[in-house]
Amino acid sequence: MKVLIVGANGQIGKHLVTSIQDHNQLDAKAMIRKEEQASYFENMGAETAVVDLEGEIEPIAKAAEGVDAIVFTAGSGPNTGADKTVLVDLDGAVKTIKAAEKAGVKRFVMISSYDTTREAIQSASSSFAPYVAAKHYADEWLKSTDLDYTIIHPGKLTNDEGSGRVNAASRVERDEIPREDVANVIVASLENASTVGKEFQVVKGNTSIDDAIKSL
Amino acid sequence: MKVLIVGANGQIGKHLVTSIQDHNQLDAKAMIRKEEQASYFENMGAETAVVDLEGEIEPIAKAAEGVDAIVFTAGSGPNTGADKTVLVDLDGAVKTIKAAEKAGVKRFVMISSYDTTREAIQSASSSFAPYVAAKHYADEWLKSTDLDYTIIHPGKLTNDEGSGRVNAASRVERDEIPREDVANVIVASLENASTVGKEFQVVKGNTSIDDAIKSL
Repeated sequence: MKVLIVGANGQIGKHLVTSIQDHNQLDAKAMIRKEEQASYFENMGAETAVVDLEGEIEPIAKAAEGVDAIVFTAGSGPNTGADKTVLVDLDGAVKTIKAAEKAGVKRFVMISSYDTTREAIQSASSSFAPYVAAKHYADEWLKSTDLDYTIIHPGKLTNDEGSGRVNAASRVERDEIPREDVANVIVASLENASTVGKEFQVVKGNTSIDDAIKSL
Repeated sequence: MKVLIVGANGQIGKHLVTSIQDHNQLDAKAMIRKEEQASYFENMGAETAVVDLEGEIEPIAKAAEGVDAIVFTAGSGPNTGADKTVLVDLDGAVKTIKAAEKAGVKRFVMISSYDTTREAIQSASSSFAPYVAAKHYADEWLKSTDLDYTIIHPGKLTNDEGSGRVNAASRVERDEIPREDVANVIVASLENASTVGKEFQVVKGNTSIDDAIKSL
């Protein structure tokens, strides 16, 4: 299975390309913004595509041609300006969804924020609320399509080493999760068709990632 | 016909309440953010409702109870921060749409931006693009509902006195339009059921507003 990773040069993205390249049945195609980011992924044996997520849909669709799944893990994160939040977290996500449809790629895994519900928008701080709203609308857009989607809502991301163990369910108590574990949750989601049409929160826990994803 | 004006205290909003109160068949209910804005509208004989558009949906739905139409003309405008663009122009609009559905109000007139197409997002300057994208998604959301919507895309807004004459069509050449004329275009749209399910651009022109709206 060839997987296009949109946002490959991000912190989760790099872990994800590594996990995919270590996996026998999966191959990564890293979508990156700048040519100089390519060698990092090519050294792992991954294909690359240089595409500006703030540009047109067509180049994204071209990068998606022939892949079996797309993972959207690009993100301005909660600390960039709200302008990039609109243009990357919302519009970049929707353009990637449209590119998937255009390229005929049915499988789509979205890396969302821990809680993107209406309640989460209303209760967020004024600086965080625009980010939550942008992720909310990206998730809503994806759910309205015919794509085989999975939406992953990770807890507070850390750079701790992954433990391979998580707690995943539609609602879990807010906690941390290492980015490395998130990457492996994405891989497990790609491998388990039972995650299609589902969204779930995931934090660190006691269950092996495979078991946690299979039991969703 | 009772019309809830969301964003009544804005520049178009004030013209609109005036036009509606001058009209025999229409009554305005001005939705405003602050109690101290109420007297301005009450002096015109308009009802008022103090609701924070950045708050929950429920108070908006309560303000919409019993009205026959809703006009969304709230807006941070292109010059506020992108955080307010997300929370007012996009999320405030979608919450108002949901409030309309909740209150059983079918008729919904959206005051959009001159061009909110995908092409307009891509060609906008980096400072303007988030605003165009936010308005794009608000328009898209409205079009996906079962509401009897009209989406109005006015040209560059001025404070010139209205001429009562405009040029309106699905695409017109970019030009200015006085806010007072936009207000009267909204009134004409409310009066003409033929505008349901349509969106159009409007700038200053040579056709009377009634004729221009009827010929859409």
